[in-house]
Amino acid sequence: MTTSSTPLNLAQQLIRDHLVEGEMTPGSEIALRIDQALLQDVLGTLVMLELEAMGLDRVKTQPSVQYIDHGLVQADNLNAETYLFLKSACERFGVWYSGPGNGISHPVHMEHFGVPGQSIVGCDSHTTAAGSLGMLAIGAGGIEVAMAMAGEPLYLSMPEIWGIRLEGSLPDWVSAKDAVLELLRRHGVAGAKNTIIEYHGPGLANLSAMDRHVLANMGTEMGATATVFPSDEETRRFLAARGREADWKPLAAEPGCSYDREEVLDLSSLEPLIALPSSPDKVVPVREVVGEPLHQAYIGSSGNPGYRDFAVVAEMVRGRTVADGVSLDINPSSRQVLATLIRDGYLADLVASGARLHQTGCNGCIGMGQAPAVGRNSLRTVPRNFPGRSGTREDSVFLCSPETAAASALAGSIADPRSLDMAYPRIAEPAQMVVNRDVFVAPLPLAEARLKPLQKTDNTPALPELAALPDTLEVPVLLVTGDNVSTDDIMPAGQRVMPYWSSVYASAPFTFEAVDADYARRAENTRTLGGHAIVGGHNYGQGSSRENAALVPRYLGLQAVLAKSFARIHWQNLICFGALPLSFIDAQDYDRLEQGDSLVIHDLHAQLAAGAELTAEVVGKGAFRLHHGLTPRQRELLACGGVINHIRRGKGASAGAAGIS
Amino acid sequence: MTTSSTPLNLAQQLIRDHLVEGEMTPGSEIALRIDQALLQDVLGTLVMLELEAMGLDRVKTQPSVQYIDHGLVQADNLNAETYLFLKSACERFGVWYSGPGNGISHPVHMEHFGVPGQSIVGCDSHTTAAGSLGMLAIGAGGIEVAMAMAGEPLYLSMPEIWGIRLEGSLPDWVSAKDAVLELLRRHGVAGAKNTIIEYHGPGLANLSAMDRHVLANMGTEMGATATVFPSDEETRRFLAARGREADWKPLAAEPGCSYDREEVLDLSSLEPLIALPSSPDKVVPVREVVGEPLHQAYIGSSGNPGYRDFAVVAEMVRGRTVADGVSLDINPSSRQVLATLIRDGYLADLVASGARLHQTGCNGCIGMGQAPAVGRNSLRTVPRNFPGRSGTREDSVFLCSPETAAASALAGSIADPRSLDMAYPRIAEPAQMVVNRDVFVAPLPLAEARLKPLQKTDNTPALPELAALPDTLEVPVLLVTGDNVSTDDIMPAGQRVMPYWSSVYASAPFTFEAVDADYARRAENTRTLGGHAIVGGHNYGQGSSRENAALVPRYLGLQAVLAKSFARIHWQNLICFGALPLSFIDAQDYDRLEQGDSLVIHDLHAQLAAGAELTAEVVGKGAFRLHHGLTPRQRELLACGGVINHIRRGKGASAGAAGIS
Repeated sequence: MTTSSTPLNLAQQLIRDHLVEGEMTPGSEIALRIDQALLQDVLGTLVMLELEAMGLDRVKTQPSVQYIDHGLVQADNLNAETYLFLKSACERFGVWYSGPGNGISHPVHMEHFGVPGQSIVGCDSHTTAAGSLGMLAIGAGGIEVAMAMAGEPLYLSMPEIWGIRLEGSLPDWVSAKDAVLELLRRHGVAGAKNTIIEYHGPGLANLSAMDRHVLANMGTEMGATATVFPSDEETRRFLAARGREADWKPLAAEPGCSYDREEVLDLSSLEPLIALPSSPDKVVPVREVVGEPLHQAYIGSSGNPGYRDFAVVAEMVRGRTVADGVSLDINPSSRQVLATLIRDGYLADLVASGARLHQTGCNGCIGMGQAPAVGRNSLRTVPRNFPGRSGTREDSVFLCSPETAAASALAGSIADPRSLDMAYPRIAEPAQMVVNRDVFVAPLPLAEARLKPLQKTDNTPALPELAALPDTLEVPVLLVTGDNVSTDDIMPAGQRVMPYWSSVYASAPFTFEAVDADYARRAENTRTLGGHAIVGGHNYGQGSSRENAALVPRYLGLQAVLAKSFARIHWQNLICFGALPLSFIDAQDYDRLEQGDSLVIHDLHAQLAAGAELTAEVVGKGAFRLHHGLTPRQRELLACGGVINHIRRGKGASAGAAGIS
Repeated sequence: MTTSSTPLNLAQQLIRDHLVEGEMTPGSEIALRIDQALLQDVLGTLVMLELEAMGLDRVKTQPSVQYIDHGLVQADNLNAETYLFLKSACERFGVWYSGPGNGISHPVHMEHFGVPGQSIVGCDSHTTAAGSLGMLAIGAGGIEVAMAMAGEPLYLSMPEIWGIRLEGSLPDWVSAKDAVLELLRRHGVAGAKNTIIEYHGPGLANLSAMDRHVLANMGTEMGATATVFPSDEETRRFLAARGREADWKPLAAEPGCSYDREEVLDLSSLEPLIALPSSPDKVVPVREVVGEPLHQAYIGSSGNPGYRDFAVVAEMVRGRTVADGVSLDINPSSRQVLATLIRDGYLADLVASGARLHQTGCNGCIGMGQAPAVGRNSLRTVPRNFPGRSGTREDSVFLCSPETAAASALAGSIADPRSLDMAYPRIAEPAQMVVNRDVFVAPLPLAEARLKPLQKTDNTPALPELAALPDTLEVPVLLVTGDNVSTDDIMPAGQRVMPYWSSVYASAPFTFEAVDADYARRAENTRTLGGHAIVGGHNYGQGSSRENAALVPRYLGLQAVLAKSFARIHWQNLICFGALPLSFIDAQDYDRLEQGDSLVIHDLHAQLAAGAELTAEVVGKGAFRLHHGLTPRQRELLACGGVINHIRRGKGASAGAAGIS
């Protein structure tokens, strides 16, 4: 608990400045006012359909920006029709539209829209990258983003603040990616759960704003809720180079402040690091894997989006040719970066070297192209190397800096960049980037916007109506899963399925495909007959924040999930769509339950209101106790059939102000 | 028939210089010595497997070049594994390897390998584009390319030579694409069947070598066997700008020569033209469709691959921004073109304008990305707009010049480029292009090549063994089709199926999918039980030259096709793989045949040898007569079970010289 007289760190100041409800004590629920919103395309479609279902007239978050960066392959008509739908929704609701070719949401938002001191929520886990500009930036499920756009606060559990003091400066051939890989090496992929990382200290002066983006982006890989950087001279320089110096203001921790947790990272002690397949925290020094065969070197993504990340590769390959049989894939992160690389001669170097230039966007980072051969080593500057994320099952993806990727592409095998026979090319940030704001489509005036219809197709149907939980729940257990079921297990990704994510109905047949291919058929049978329950193990719903992993099963009749434990965002998503997450108090009750059991909960709403626990019964197996831990607000959502009904009935905290019709 | 004293046109000279067998009389079979070979990836895989099946030691065509330009999406591991297989096959057989990112086979071959006066065959219908350099350039089925690579001659029916005299010069805002669209408007998509087009006349001086590529490329759209241009000062200039002036030599028609057919095209009379959906010959003046809504403008492909085709767009969009909601897609045709556009500042203009820059390759031209929304107008500089080729069923694709596409992208609707408020930017061909030959992988020395294994996967299995036709054919009629069944109907294309084309076995389930989804299952049942026959209507096997439309049904047991008439290349492909194409002499016999009938042909080989006709019988329906028209060489192929067995048994015309082991 923080009193007004205590010096505040920067994260606490940002939270204080946006606090609508709650106490800033780690673990207690707080509600934050949200200034800006960020959408990407494959999850933005559902957000727009949610705004429609809420009956929203105009978004409150300013700016709200819809980026087209994920679904760029356009193998058939679906991607292009998604763009048309999203553009029409932008026109209708007052959202900026950034079409295909403008770049990856996170760097583009930073270049054109990010403002120090503001809060932002986005339906993409790497939204945290905006913390590099001194923003309070949080990734969330799409429905929470939709609520924020409608003017509702964002609810979360007050995180701990983790101060990481940066000292020294990066040695030659070592860059920001190596710094965040060192933190992953130390703390692992769960090392910052329920935590905001705040960087401070003298080492900051040696990191450009885009270097900071690398650290803020991959804070997500440690499970951090957000990453915060001060807004300082580097921040001012970044904005000025983009004609936006007026948006700058200084922000810093107050002298004498403290952190819930403290750490020191001496940048000068670092060496080139690499994460082995297939987890971002399997980090070792590059020198330990030198000489391993190489198939592909991939430059780009929100994990290394900066001008310097491409320019340093260009300096390294200038006058040389990429090794035979290695694909050096260049994926520009934004139109601004691409245009400036052209202006400054770096793109010429890259193309002449035999590198392969791809369109600007997320591309291979999310398995949309550039999938490697099975078992062949791919070195990537991306933030994640989860198994199969590249689009190839049994892939072999490493994470590293652009320097390491480029040195390896030249060598034809994994190489330590320090072994390259040249002086380290330190890249100066350009004083002026190539900027064209006209490539964004600005929101229409309200009167004009109200006349715009949504350009819907069969693949962007309206969301289903969801009913409130009944007072007596009496449903079959349709599926029993093991531990660590991920949202990827529940709703598959990839080029095969993602174009259908915009439709709850077209997505439904893929639900739980790899876990139980028959689940979707059985669930469909319960849909209009009272629904069903699922029983899960520990960490149910881990991984990506994708809300369709809650919404689509809910549409198929899911009423309750009984699990040993839940992943945080999926737990929230279930509640937002009106499904009841319950935890076993005695984990052994899990063992008693089987597919086909009949679950009964009497007096459900009264039991939820009476305390944190309730009693359920399985026909023929007797009663047992479950924990729910719902706040009054969350109980109200369940009593309505979820957030959309709640807002539509005018019950949102700021429904009036949000212009809900 | 041409005697040695008659002045020869250029096509006749090229044929004479490569004639191995036959008389240069239109319609009679000739055999041509082939100097060079061109492979693209999605059809090159089968060619390499055919070389393996033949037991080839080293290719005879010099150079032979394998290009990776079609399958660039890499949605999963298959594309990347195809690259590895093809690269290993290049190493084994002595073939140049041009990896992904180097560009589209046709312009890249012209830039780096094309030599005036030589002959080339390629497993891609647009191989004809090399005629722009004064080559005798022919597209063919993969098996014919494999035969050429093994040192066998290419057999074809001596075409008529069609002299097109070019006069005048192109007006402002009119370019080479408009010239070939005018010819398509006049003569239609079948207007040059069994014909070589030869351009001559004073208008030639006003067309650069890459302008000529546009005309030679799209001669294929008129059904031409080849298109031939003289090798003149423009040709020399083209080669010199690429450091290859030594490869130049002058070539021209002999004074006083004649043509089988003559035509005049006055370039100065042309205006901007456009082909409406969905055929290249539905050509009208652009002015007739001005104002129609626009969704996409697509620049690139082998239909408009030249430096000037991109530079003129850059000049037009400089300082302007593409209209809201229009996607201006830039698809560089080659690394050399891309690098030179960067050097000369044009790429900067394109990117700054809001255009979307894609990787270098075939891309959307063959439905690999950039698929438009259903029914939305897409203006493309590509050579073909067959329905669905874009990747979208019910697409609406127009063909036009870069000038028309760019003017429309700026206007936001279809526009006549002459209406743009600026002087026409005539682009000078650069005196020197940006060249890096190191990005090609040269063939290995023979001793080293022999040690190289093919890097095969489950998706590049060895070809099936094909048996000879029996002397008594007794098979069920498994399928009866209508007229105009295309090779697309027989073997589907697109991102969904094409990655499997490298495997006869994985492709098999897709065979005739849209015609009769059960065919593949029924055929598989006949495969080891004597096989089956197919009955077709007119023009059976029209469209793309893809050989798997013959090979895969043959693997599934196809022994004979009885049709009213055949498309030329598919007819050849059937014979090459040992299946017997037969034409009804009385078309009414077609009406008597039904699925399930039992077809019997007695004394098959004796009947084939006895004349151009034979007698068949359908059990319960009596006997009828069929035409075959096979040459002795073709009868020998059928007696062996196809070309591969024929060559493997040392029966090829030059098997010894070809180094068959």
